[in-house]
Amino acid sequence: MASKKTKLRVFSLGGVQEIGKNMYVLEYGDDIIIVDCGVMFPEDDQLGIDLVIPDFSYLTKNKDKVRGVILTHGHEDHIGAVPYFCRELNVPLYGTTLTLGLAELKLKEHNLLGTTTRKYVKAGETVELGKHFKVEFISVTHSIAGAVALAIKTPAGIVVHTGDFKIDHTPVQGDRIDLQRFAELGRQGVLLFLCDSTNVELKGYTISERQVGETFESIFNQTQNHRIMVATFSSNIPRIQQLVNAAKRHGRRVAFVGRSMLNVVKTASELGYLTIPDHVMIDISEINNYVDGQIVIITTGSQGEPMSALSRMAINEHRQVEIKPGDKIIISASSIPGNEKSITRLINELFKKGADVVYEGLAEIHVSGHAKQEEIKLMHALVKPKFFMPVHGEYKHLKHHCELAVTMGMPRENVFLTNNGDVLELNADAAKLNGTVPHGQVLVDGLGVGDVGSIVLRDRRHLSQDGIIIVVLSFNGEEGNIAAGPDIISRGFVYVRESENLMDEARAVVKKALVKCENRNIVEWSYIKTEIRDTLKEYVWQKTKRSPMILPVIMEV
Amino acid sequence: MASKKTKLRVFSLGGVQEIGKNMYVLEYGDDIIIVDCGVMFPEDDQLGIDLVIPDFSYLTKNKDKVRGVILTHGHEDHIGAVPYFCRELNVPLYGTTLTLGLAELKLKEHNLLGTTTRKYVKAGETVELGKHFKVEFISVTHSIAGAVALAIKTPAGIVVHTGDFKIDHTPVQGDRIDLQRFAELGRQGVLLFLCDSTNVELKGYTISERQVGETFESIFNQTQNHRIMVATFSSNIPRIQQLVNAAKRHGRRVAFVGRSMLNVVKTASELGYLTIPDHVMIDISEINNYVDGQIVIITTGSQGEPMSALSRMAINEHRQVEIKPGDKIIISASSIPGNEKSITRLINELFKKGADVVYEGLAEIHVSGHAKQEEIKLMHALVKPKFFMPVHGEYKHLKHHCELAVTMGMPRENVFLTNNGDVLELNADAAKLNGTVPHGQVLVDGLGVGDVGSIVLRDRRHLSQDGIIIVVLSFNGEEGNIAAGPDIISRGFVYVRESENLMDEARAVVKKALVKCENRNIVEWSYIKTEIRDTLKEYVWQKTKRSPMILPVIMEV
Repeated sequence: MASKKTKLRVFSLGGVQEIGKNMYVLEYGDDIIIVDCGVMFPEDDQLGIDLVIPDFSYLTKNKDKVRGVILTHGHEDHIGAVPYFCRELNVPLYGTTLTLGLAELKLKEHNLLGTTTRKYVKAGETVELGKHFKVEFISVTHSIAGAVALAIKTPAGIVVHTGDFKIDHTPVQGDRIDLQRFAELGRQGVLLFLCDSTNVELKGYTISERQVGETFESIFNQTQNHRIMVATFSSNIPRIQQLVNAAKRHGRRVAFVGRSMLNVVKTASELGYLTIPDHVMIDISEINNYVDGQIVIITTGSQGEPMSALSRMAINEHRQVEIKPGDKIIISASSIPGNEKSITRLINELFKKGADVVYEGLAEIHVSGHAKQEEIKLMHALVKPKFFMPVHGEYKHLKHHCELAVTMGMPRENVFLTNNGDVLELNADAAKLNGTVPHGQVLVDGLGVGDVGSIVLRDRRHLSQDGIIIVVLSFNGEEGNIAAGPDIISRGFVYVRESENLMDEARAVVKKALVKCENRNIVEWSYIKTEIRDTLKEYVWQKTKRSPMILPVIMEV
Repeated sequence: MASKKTKLRVFSLGGVQEIGKNMYVLEYGDDIIIVDCGVMFPEDDQLGIDLVIPDFSYLTKNKDKVRGVILTHGHEDHIGAVPYFCRELNVPLYGTTLTLGLAELKLKEHNLLGTTTRKYVKAGETVELGKHFKVEFISVTHSIAGAVALAIKTPAGIVVHTGDFKIDHTPVQGDRIDLQRFAELGRQGVLLFLCDSTNVELKGYTISERQVGETFESIFNQTQNHRIMVATFSSNIPRIQQLVNAAKRHGRRVAFVGRSMLNVVKTASELGYLTIPDHVMIDISEINNYVDGQIVIITTGSQGEPMSALSRMAINEHRQVEIKPGDKIIISASSIPGNEKSITRLINELFKKGADVVYEGLAEIHVSGHAKQEEIKLMHALVKPKFFMPVHGEYKHLKHHCELAVTMGMPRENVFLTNNGDVLELNADAAKLNGTVPHGQVLVDGLGVGDVGSIVLRDRRHLSQDGIIIVVLSFNGEEGNIAAGPDIISRGFVYVRESENLMDEARAVVKKALVKCENRNIVEWSYIKTEIRDTLKEYVWQKTKRSPMILPVIMEV
């Protein structure tokens, strides 16, 4: 119940201090609304993990209060956790048609489409959620169509959330960013500003998507008799539209490759976000009906992902496309941190096949979708909030964004660098941090959500470094002696051929440990196992300076 | 034996198409000389591997011909494999005092110092190796002192090898790059040019190391009352010298942290490459005797390596140094590809501790040690070789370097983009590729050199992704029935608590497979094992969409 003393509570369940996994929560009285529901890709040491999603436990515990999820745009780090969320809570999703169209692809895969309510909104519209929230959608430019910012009217005041944005005055498609509306809101008075921090370390302005179109045009002009292949993010509809336009102008046909590319192109075309004339698009199986100078292939794989279409082409393992000498291949993306080496490996392989590869640094074939310093400053100047909390970034980005806000004249005490789970409590006059809610990373591995934790990951890391040695022996319970074994088996440790001596000696070492136990009348299995493990570990370290996992198994016969 | 028909053979055993692991071989008649003996750090999928070294088998097979190893400078990717090489072949090492000083640290660790001959050379000197090679050392600038290029006089003609270089007209210490000598050699006629390709994709010039000194000066000026901590490569002696100079000017003391930093500083000081006034250097244990404004700490860990001094400080696990709010921390290095995420993690942690962190992109606190396009063009213009083979780079770099040489006017047929092991055969008039020698990567894991191969790595990868399930059972040989088990044990698969049901069902599945074998009178263990593996694999995949390694173990009692 809301009273005069009720405060607005704002917190992040993901998205603060980590890239991706965006999820922000606003709570007032008995109403909770959620902004975005994103997924993170696992860190290098999260071995075997497919996805990382937010911990929803605060929301499931307060199920009855949750009024809906608002999705600002259709990138994985904003919608990727939607199916995992919708399994747990059945509340409506709000978003533009493209955003929901992409979310629906995921719901379908998880058989949740029939049970999940979707509410389609347009920039400029306002929807009511519960008794206390009115959410207005504001057009912004980003590297995907249908992106919106939010002005959330609450009893405590207006909260402006930028979503992901850049200020592109000449977008390729869709509306411009509605700067006037941000200015109006600023004039009315904004209580709290949540603003994208991704590019806050970069000086100046992010250049317009249209610049990439100009680079494409000049590459198309120079490439007369060869195929043009472009790898980009499937969600970058404006980029794809520019390629389709260039292909049309130059009399080329366009074929799409890669599962996510085909899915997104289909959805975006159906929803009117992508316009491909009928005679321009062909199926990939048809490319050999045309000469090379008539072909453009748009594919996934810009991050060098080993299973992606382009990576498979590079190593001659793609069913339909083989790289030919002279192919002009454009990697129209920047490296997501952590992918640098796989992208370089991909580029090397393509060059070896005789292709001419163009990538970041060699030409302007990619621009960011996020605002740099001058754009961020402009937004602060227009919105002029009372309180500020930077979002979407690692600690270093949030830190720099706070400094930027202070430089813009905000009192330092009105600027809040929070951790995930930290609750910012506000009324019309004041804001302060007050407690935390449960938060964290939930790991998805295959069908398992949350069943892989730190012990399993620690074991996987251990196994990955030096493998495992298994010692098996059968113990005769009645006679109290060893019936069979010890047998020693290893995996991931060392070549068997090389290690035969080592394994023979290891068996002797284990036997000695067993004799020692016998002499001391030790019959407790857990003790015997510890003795085997310690003795063998010491021996293997001495001999090899390696520490495989050692797993003694005792059976009673 | 050399005759008129003898040709000069030049090939790489590492360093072409991979970063690091540099090793080039020149062979003429019965003389072989080797240039550099470097090490590579393992790729992400080379799990548990410590180092990657060249395959020396061609050299061990031709042991009697090998006259010596010439080291161009003291970086790991040029000297790191020296101890592994010296174990196999006992030939003299040639290098400047710093280069050999750093190599000696490694020989000492491997107890090879007593048995390995070192020959100290200076830029400008020439040494004879065998009957056919005269090697002249030429001063070059790089991010370490004591770096040299080589002019190798052979019966076929002169081979110029740049080593790693940049053209720094205002080096901080040591000689400038001897451009006149390269010009003279060019006038005399150079048969083959081997040139560093690392930065060939970057336009313009690499700026002088002195610029970093100016940035340091301005940071020291702005930082009056706080400690200054700088993470850099321990081998970057010129960088360390500039820091020491700045500390002296500003009345600060310098303490060094990190094992390799302490080793290199000691060696470089002893050999006269680093000048630290007595009163300036203090031990790290003494830092608390001074106020913060009097302290500079120079440390390892610029790549965010988890075990490095700076990383341990960032998580409060360093014995002697704790990060304080206000500490000015300079990461004076760029990211080596693959380290981006660990560096960002480090920076985030340092910011969280209240430190003020300066890193690449925010200020000019690092410059490369490698020549960019304009410098590379200048070297081609001076050396004007007949034949050219790019070295030190991945395929994409070598490819671009070949294009650059063609742009400079070289006939395309005189430019050779080789693979490791490809033999370039030359006489005074002609060059062509002719055959290959054995080459490859040898993996070092603990004390093992080459005992971890593709099967072991494949198993480690498998184990790292989904762990292992071990099925153990005892078989009564006489009675032909199961004496104990099947027991099922897993590691790195899933939480035991979560998986109890799963494991019970798995046991039932295995039992069913055993009954099936019994009914069909199958007694061959290998067949039974296959049956268990296939059945369980299918079951686990259906239930979890995961594929752990499945290892059946059968014992006879």
